[in-house]
Amino acid sequence: MKSKIDTAPEPSERDGLSRRRFLTAASAGVAGAVAGSALADTLADVPARFPGAPLGGHSERSQYVDISRIPEAGPGVRNVDPGNAINSKTPLNKLVGVVTPTDLHYERSHAGVPNLDPAKHRLLVHGSVQKPLVLTVDDLKAMPSVSRIHFIECTGNGWENWKKADPDLTVQNTHGLISTNEWTGVPLRFLIDLVGKDRSSNWMLAEGGDGAGVDRSIPLTEEIMDDAIVAYGQNGEPLRPAHGFPIRLIMPGFEGNLHIKWLRRLKFGDQPWMTRWETARYTQLLANGKARQFQLRMETNSVITSPSGMMEIRPGYHRITGLAWSGHGKIAKVEVSTDAGNTWKEAQLNHPVLPKAQARFQMDWEWDGKATKIVSRSTDEKGNVQPDRQSFLDQVGTNALFHYNAQQTWSIDTSGRVRNALS
Amino acid sequence: MKSKIDTAPEPSERDGLSRRRFLTAASAGVAGAVAGSALADTLADVPARFPGAPLGGHSERSQYVDISRIPEAGPGVRNVDPGNAINSKTPLNKLVGVVTPTDLHYERSHAGVPNLDPAKHRLLVHGSVQKPLVLTVDDLKAMPSVSRIHFIECTGNGWENWKKADPDLTVQNTHGLISTNEWTGVPLRFLIDLVGKDRSSNWMLAEGGDGAGVDRSIPLTEEIMDDAIVAYGQNGEPLRPAHGFPIRLIMPGFEGNLHIKWLRRLKFGDQPWMTRWETARYTQLLANGKARQFQLRMETNSVITSPSGMMEIRPGYHRITGLAWSGHGKIAKVEVSTDAGNTWKEAQLNHPVLPKAQARFQMDWEWDGKATKIVSRSTDEKGNVQPDRQSFLDQVGTNALFHYNAQQTWSIDTSGRVRNALS
Repeated sequence: MKSKIDTAPEPSERDGLSRRRFLTAASAGVAGAVAGSALADTLADVPARFPGAPLGGHSERSQYVDISRIPEAGPGVRNVDPGNAINSKTPLNKLVGVVTPTDLHYERSHAGVPNLDPAKHRLLVHGSVQKPLVLTVDDLKAMPSVSRIHFIECTGNGWENWKKADPDLTVQNTHGLISTNEWTGVPLRFLIDLVGKDRSSNWMLAEGGDGAGVDRSIPLTEEIMDDAIVAYGQNGEPLRPAHGFPIRLIMPGFEGNLHIKWLRRLKFGDQPWMTRWETARYTQLLANGKARQFQLRMETNSVITSPSGMMEIRPGYHRITGLAWSGHGKIAKVEVSTDAGNTWKEAQLNHPVLPKAQARFQMDWEWDGKATKIVSRSTDEKGNVQPDRQSFLDQVGTNALFHYNAQQTWSIDTSGRVRNALS
Repeated sequence: MKSKIDTAPEPSERDGLSRRRFLTAASAGVAGAVAGSALADTLADVPARFPGAPLGGHSERSQYVDISRIPEAGPGVRNVDPGNAINSKTPLNKLVGVVTPTDLHYERSHAGVPNLDPAKHRLLVHGSVQKPLVLTVDDLKAMPSVSRIHFIECTGNGWENWKKADPDLTVQNTHGLISTNEWTGVPLRFLIDLVGKDRSSNWMLAEGGDGAGVDRSIPLTEEIMDDAIVAYGQNGEPLRPAHGFPIRLIMPGFEGNLHIKWLRRLKFGDQPWMTRWETARYTQLLANGKARQFQLRMETNSVITSPSGMMEIRPGYHRITGLAWSGHGKIAKVEVSTDAGNTWKEAQLNHPVLPKAQARFQMDWEWDGKATKIVSRSTDEKGNVQPDRQSFLDQVGTNALFHYNAQQTWSIDTSGRVRNALS
């Protein structure tokens, strides 16, 4: 198979379509053709022909760019005082590409952000092993490393829409608990071999060093032993405190709570530890009143980020764009409907499409000004298809709080207002 | 061909070697095995069992992380007042992975950093075209987009070592004029088709909107029309002012000066414009006194980032790591010598290896404490091999200032001090 990553930018029939549509829009006034003096005016208008600000140690954002997360105290309780926040959501409506800016990666914590001194921090690796070890951060940095681009998604992402639809939500509110960064660190497999894990030990306890001491039992499948990383780097630099400095576990494709931040302990054993984080919390209450434990993988998902909630659009050409992801691997296909799910068209996927990372999709759309609904659905390389909301509820019920991956619908009224809708 | 990107983390014989060596180092005191009370001590020591800082709108760096660029006034004139700086170098010695943190991407400017209002900015696209256009930033954002991870390298990168070796240089000093980010924007090919470029017009003038008004003539090869991007996004967010906000040209694989920042004009024609930036400047003075024009592509290159200049090491196990890149495409191979170039061993490449992006390499090394020199050499997918310094000078001479891609040697004395050396 020739990898998509080897191909040049994707000139496609869709580009041809965009071009015609864009020129139509352009002649309608979005972009103006140039003639005569307009050329000189344009050039006179644009540049600042004087020395700019000096260079420096860091490149800060433009004063014209206003971009930040939203601290929340839980579903429906937004823009709270940061001291009351339990999470802080990524502004997907203002981002492009697939890499999330490091300082805008979503946050979720159970006891705030500890300020750990990396020189004093230790990782204890023990349990059913031949040689338990206490490792410093420098020890970890001296080991073989990998760097991979993966999403992390809070298992509560989407909870805003589980029970009801608040129309005045943005995509930051509905889906802002997912981000994609490049993570660098030691492959879990290397540490497992280093301490000499007993072959029969197929569970691992990972414990965080914050005030909450979040600890989770992780089944050591071949996939997880291949993929998991004890990470110290994030988008090229040391982890930031909110994201686990000095070290965190990366569990590609699995719920965010397993990516233990401020990691201080890995313990190996032959059964799960049944911590309160996997019994009292992070279990899935089903329709029949029973709770499902250890539902760990994030399912295939997608959302249109533009146009999206609280935006206003005008009739004519639009470039629909959004993000898709799956804990099962790569996204294979994203379809978009602009008629409330009656008909679907395959969107264009930006390459490279990386496994267990967000993928960017795009589609041309000519809006005729009539009220309608737009919605996306993803299919991953394992053939999993993102369900519509009713199918999802039929299967999972409404008691649950986690792993919501139903299709996201945005309604558009005749005045062009884009609003959150359940379907 | 099965793409490397599809494979799981690379368990290899080298990992086995690392493991044995790391355990040898561990028993020598780098990492301590745990027994009895040490376990309890470790756990008591590490975590802060109290609530941490509140969540917020942005994740800032740890107080324990000190990482910034170095403003320079030219070769050998470092740590200058920012007002006198002509560039500001990326701290490669403190970074991991391949993505450069956005605020640490290297800077090079000719008239400081302009503060442009994106609402007022325009891009004029004209010349030998059927339909000249003036585009707003919003126009560009409404067009089809691509997102690609590419390096940008100042053509002067390496000039520190062109004529002489200052032993007290870090890799930030010698090679800090290269960075790798994810760039998002409109494919140049789309704009070319949009304005209807004359088929005979195979040159493009790109002009920046800063005080210097840097403008360059670009040959419109198929490769460039496929790869070039008019970018508005950088690592997921709007470009930062130092890197061209609101729009810049991305010319993957070609010298940094062509990636015009604060882009305000693209003009098409059938010959180069011979601007002062390609006649008086950015030409290559050869040994025979003649100057070579339009030497645009960055050649295959590599550098060991750890251990590197001004570090101190101890005898025993080390994980050598560094970065390799080529303007011709993907890196195919990196070899490392730990005996001053007498013998070479192939290093491990972290996957995915992306085209025209930096690639991370690693290799185990057991230092016996004797004085030696370490050096890397890259080979790209087109078969280009990074030359040793003498071969490079034999070919290019010492009059030139640009496109230095000779192998970088670090000397290590018996006390473990790592210093810059010419070969």
